Amino acid sequence: MNDRASDPLQPAAPRRVARVRDVSVNLAHGSGGRAMRDLIEDVFVSTFDNPTLAALEDQAVFALADLATRGDRLAFTTDSYVVDPLFFPGGDIGTLAVAGTVNDLAVCGATPLYLSCAVVIEEGLAVDILRRVAASMQRVALEAGVAIVTGDTKVVERGCADKLFINTAGIGVVRRDVSTSARNARPGDIVIVNGYLGDHGAAILVARQQLALEADVESDCCPLNSLIAAMLDACPQIHCLRDATRGGVATVLNEFAQSSNVTIRLREADLPLREQVKGACEILGLDPLYLANEGKLVAVVPAAAAERVLTAMRAHPAGREAAAIGTVEMGEAGAAGLVVMQTVFGGQRIVDMLVGEQLPRIC
Amino acid sequence: MNDRASDPLQPAAPRRVARVRDVSVNLAHGSGGRAMRDLIEDVFVSTFDNPTLAALEDQAVFALADLATRGDRLAFTTDSYVVDPLFFPGGDIGTLAVAGTVNDLAVCGATPLYLSCAVVIEEGLAVDILRRVAASMQRVALEAGVAIVTGDTKVVERGCADKLFINTAGIGVVRRDVSTSARNARPGDIVIVNGYLGDHGAAILVARQQLALEADVESDCCPLNSLIAAMLDACPQIHCLRDATRGGVATVLNEFAQSSNVTIRLREADLPLREQVKGACEILGLDPLYLANEGKLVAVVPAAAAERVLTAMRAHPAGREAAAIGTVEMGEAGAAGLVVMQTVFGGQRIVDMLVGEQLPRIC
Repeated sequence: MNDRASDPLQPAAPRRVARVRDVSVNLAHGSGGRAMRDLIEDVFVSTFDNPTLAALEDQAVFALADLATRGDRLAFTTDSYVVDPLFFPGGDIGTLAVAGTVNDLAVCGATPLYLSCAVVIEEGLAVDILRRVAASMQRVALEAGVAIVTGDTKVVERGCADKLFINTAGIGVVRRDVSTSARNARPGDIVIVNGYLGDHGAAILVARQQLALEADVESDCCPLNSLIAAMLDACPQIHCLRDATRGGVATVLNEFAQSSNVTIRLREADLPLREQVKGACEILGLDPLYLANEGKLVAVVPAAAAERVLTAMRAHPAGREAAAIGTVEMGEAGAAGLVVMQTVFGGQRIVDMLVGEQLPRIC
Repeated sequence: MNDRASDPLQPAAPRRVARVRDVSVNLAHGSGGRAMRDLIEDVFVSTFDNPTLAALEDQAVFALADLATRGDRLAFTTDSYVVDPLFFPGGDIGTLAVAGTVNDLAVCGATPLYLSCAVVIEEGLAVDILRRVAASMQRVALEAGVAIVTGDTKVVERGCADKLFINTAGIGVVRRDVSTSARNARPGDIVIVNGYLGDHGAAILVARQQLALEADVESDCCPLNSLIAAMLDACPQIHCLRDATRGGVATVLNEFAQSSNVTIRLREADLPLREQVKGACEILGLDPLYLANEGKLVAVVPAAAAERVLTAMRAHPAGREAAAIGTVEMGEAGAAGLVVMQTVFGGQRIVDMLVGEQLPRIC
């Protein structure tokens, strides 16, 4: 067994690290040479603090036998983060980069374990910004119980990227008893969300000064793996589970409806929306159902289990405002795969997939 | 067992796909909505052609039991690719993105299996360029025997990225009998490379028109996993193995020397260098030992196995010009971790780690 396979979920032995003296990142920091090594050791290895990363090999290695103690299937996912601005109320690109990938693993019933971190840096970025972002990543990684075990650093010339892009890939192990899929929604099922919708999108609008709100709104960015574990403990047979990021709840529900060939009927009155987000959407002509979330999930559960799942969710900090927002019905002939909203005025309207772009670079 | 866990190394069932009608990528293609879905289905899913990706879940899932048939440890790696220009003699950003990550897995003795593909696209990029790059990725993936099983698409405004960046992460399974590490070099070991050095760096210089060569030089970009498998069949106890990309052979050897606390002595006369690359380096004041390669590895092997490994390498298309270029010696007191070159004139010089930047955006 390779000695770098020591447990990355434990901190690395303390080590002396040369501190980068440059105030800003230059092209040499992406060269593959000494400057890059120093930047990686100082900013990333010392912050992410685990022996697997600290070995500075080009890959992380884990015993399959250890993985198999957690379940029977490996889950693998990736996301790049290009959010603008880098920092916003409630989070930053680093919190997104960890929470987003953790959540993509968790929604398939996986226990997220290991993340990679690959950065593309625009020449001239302040090293202190990198430090802040790395610290955010580590804070969320600790909260989610994952380790950042391998990485890559590239630097491009000024004007060839916008400050900082981060890619995280993640691996986790799927619990034996779980099988969620967008194809599993069945007539009679209940549609559940874990709280207020659209906070992340609204927070980004505020951060871009495209929107002045009387009351503050913060991004909901957070890892959902422990909430999801509680939900799966309450009901391992959750049919569909997905985080509602880009494209919002509307897009997730359309994917469920199309993949499962059913109609999903929402009740507008039951959607958990903050007054300030609702108001902002009205002013800007945005639909909160399409606003991005970074700490919200949509679950489709058998009706018999709905109350049990809701109770488990409301006992968790990330699920206090959990709500049932709709039901699954048979797909109508020739109109399968629809999402329909029962409006507060008693009418109904189709909630289509997002066409065009509401808010670029939301994540 | 989830039905999307069907074998991703087999082609997906044929499917009808809406062809993207846009000539160039716009912000809606990164929205999370319908335009993004169409772009992903048309350009990536149809090209990468496997059922795991085609399921369009946010993560790929594999049975751990299947992985365990190939070895006892999981390897996990990531790299972002920002090469400029996107297309160059002998390859493009797509060939790099697959071969580079395959090679990072293979050098730890892993059989590469599954890759992710996350693209950051600058608004305005021609869709046809994406198609060409995706086709290159799939060609190299098939050559290497890997499947691209999960992905992500982001679009940023014009001027906020330079055309296209690609991140690939990869997972593979390490053979039971293998344990390579930068720390394993021992006095008496032989240093081997698999052929001509610096071709990739020189090809990029030519593509940027920073260098006009009389004879053509092409990037050596190629997957090395089958070559490495042949080497490990010949000698499972290969001590160190790494691909020599950014920073070149000099950087890899310095990492070996420092991690293993030894001196590595190179013989300049034995370095496999093409005449045109050598000439170009002389004109431009570059040292070919620092030029990037994308299909070259450095191996440190026990002396008793060196001829056996070289014979196995020379029988492989990617190892025809394999050569022993140096030896490992005891680290001198107070000077451990050195790389020393025996020059053709009988002198010697220190080969340090790369300081500063030779060629930005080489990969």
